Amino acid sequence: MNYREVSGDREFVARLAHDADWRGEIESLADDEEIDAAWFVAMGAVKDATVWYYDQTELEYREVEFDEPLEVAACVGNISWLDVSDQRSDGSSGESDGGERFAHTHAVLSRKSGQTLAGHLDSATVFAGELYVRTFEDELEREHHEPTDLDLWL
Amino acid sequence: MNYREVSGDREFVARLAHDADWRGEIESLADDEEIDAAWFVAMGAVKDATVWYYDQTELEYREVEFDEPLEVAACVGNISWLDVSDQRSDGSSGESDGGERFAHTHAVLSRKSGQTLAGHLDSATVFAGELYVRTFEDELEREHHEPTDLDLWL
Amino acid sequence: MNYREVSGDREFVARLAHDADWRGEIESLADDEEIDAAWFVAMGAVKDATVWYYDQTELEYREVEFDEPLEVAACVGNISWLDVSDQRSDGSSGESDGGERFAHTHAVLSRKSGQTLAGHLDSATVFAGELYVRTFEDELEREHHEPTDLDLWL
Repeated sequence: MNYREVSGDREFVARLAHDADWRGEIESLADDEEIDAAWFVAMGAVKDATVWYYDQTELEYREVEFDEPLEVAACVGNISWLDVSDQRSDGSSGESDGGERFAHTHAVLSRKSGQTLAGHLDSATVFAGELYVRTFEDELEREHHEPTDLDLWL
Repeated sequence: MNYREVSGDREFVARLAHDADWRGEIESLADDEEIDAAWFVAMGAVKDATVWYYDQTELEYREVEFDEPLEVAACVGNISWLDVSDQRSDGSSGESDGGERFAHTHAVLSRKSGQTLAGHLDSATVFAGELYVRTFEDELEREHHEPTDLDLWL
Repeated sequence: MNYREVSGDREFVARLAHDADWRGEIESLADDEEIDAAWFVAMGAVKDATVWYYDQTELEYREVEFDEPLEVAACVGNISWLDVSDQRSDGSSGESDGGERFAHTHAVLSRKSGQTLAGHLDSATVFAGELYVRTFEDELEREHHEPTDLDLWL
């Protein structure tokens, strides 16, 4: 196991904007406050959601779309620096060094019946969202990890 | 997006009392320690649960009751100050300024089969509950938000 | 309700090792860093999982095994000191004082369809796992609690 002791630096609470993208809001806060490493928890409700499931055999994400209002029963995730230099075939880039802040976001969503859906949250339209972010002075940077074909930090 | 930097002040761990109300226990701790703003995570098991789902079209909560033992697989939420002056038609009031501490609580619950239920947790009878609360010096106060007809802070 | 104010001491982020046991990794970090009390949140994916549900009538855990790849949509838990002196009939023991560090771990897991499973996570083979641990200077020690027949702290 790889691990590192970190020092909490700054903390934020946020209300995600109605009709904005859930993950985009978190990344926007990260950009505004220059947060290079953080963990967060959140809760609220969304108008729809696109959830990813990682196919551990094919090493590819599978997408499931839910075009319906859902509670966000729980949302946990972290903010790190993602190297996107290899991933953009269109020649565009993120920040000048080829990276961008990425909010790795997992969520548990629920329907009116209480029935629950969950996974890696790619995007979702905010109905109402409440967020707590705890930042670290230490930078977390994701790099390609061969066995999983994922970008992992540490 | 509205957000605010906050300063963590005090932290608590708690064991929720057997047979007490899950959310009531959190609010009782908030009252005892005069916590005006906090985030928490919790886990455990309950004897029953009343879960709310917000109807985003009708702008009303729908209630689902589960009268059965359930694991609390994950519980996240926050404590803030809620203005109840407009909400009590019976003339009763909370604290002298018309407000009360409110634990906005979401939970993911599970059955013996592993099947999962989730949503806004209104009430639940504690079987066993473990809680971590991180408080902030800054007060969070909920106010009415027109587009969602919810009481939101910030 | 029993509760205690605690002081955060040290914080860690970790990447759980591919193919290791999810809970074992957390306990390994606790042993390496001599963490006697902490709360954690985590997320990722596992290759399989054994989830426990507590039967509140029979006062026994029931086990459900999922031999399939799953997302870890949310994982919350805490680290405390567990007295195992009464629990080992084979004469083996943990640390010299009869105790061991225990990561009480709950998890919400999801399938490709978004369908969700959850409960007390006994074991799971890590595919990829990201962990945040917040430790406390105060020790938490679990002791037998008669009404639930569980080992609870405080």
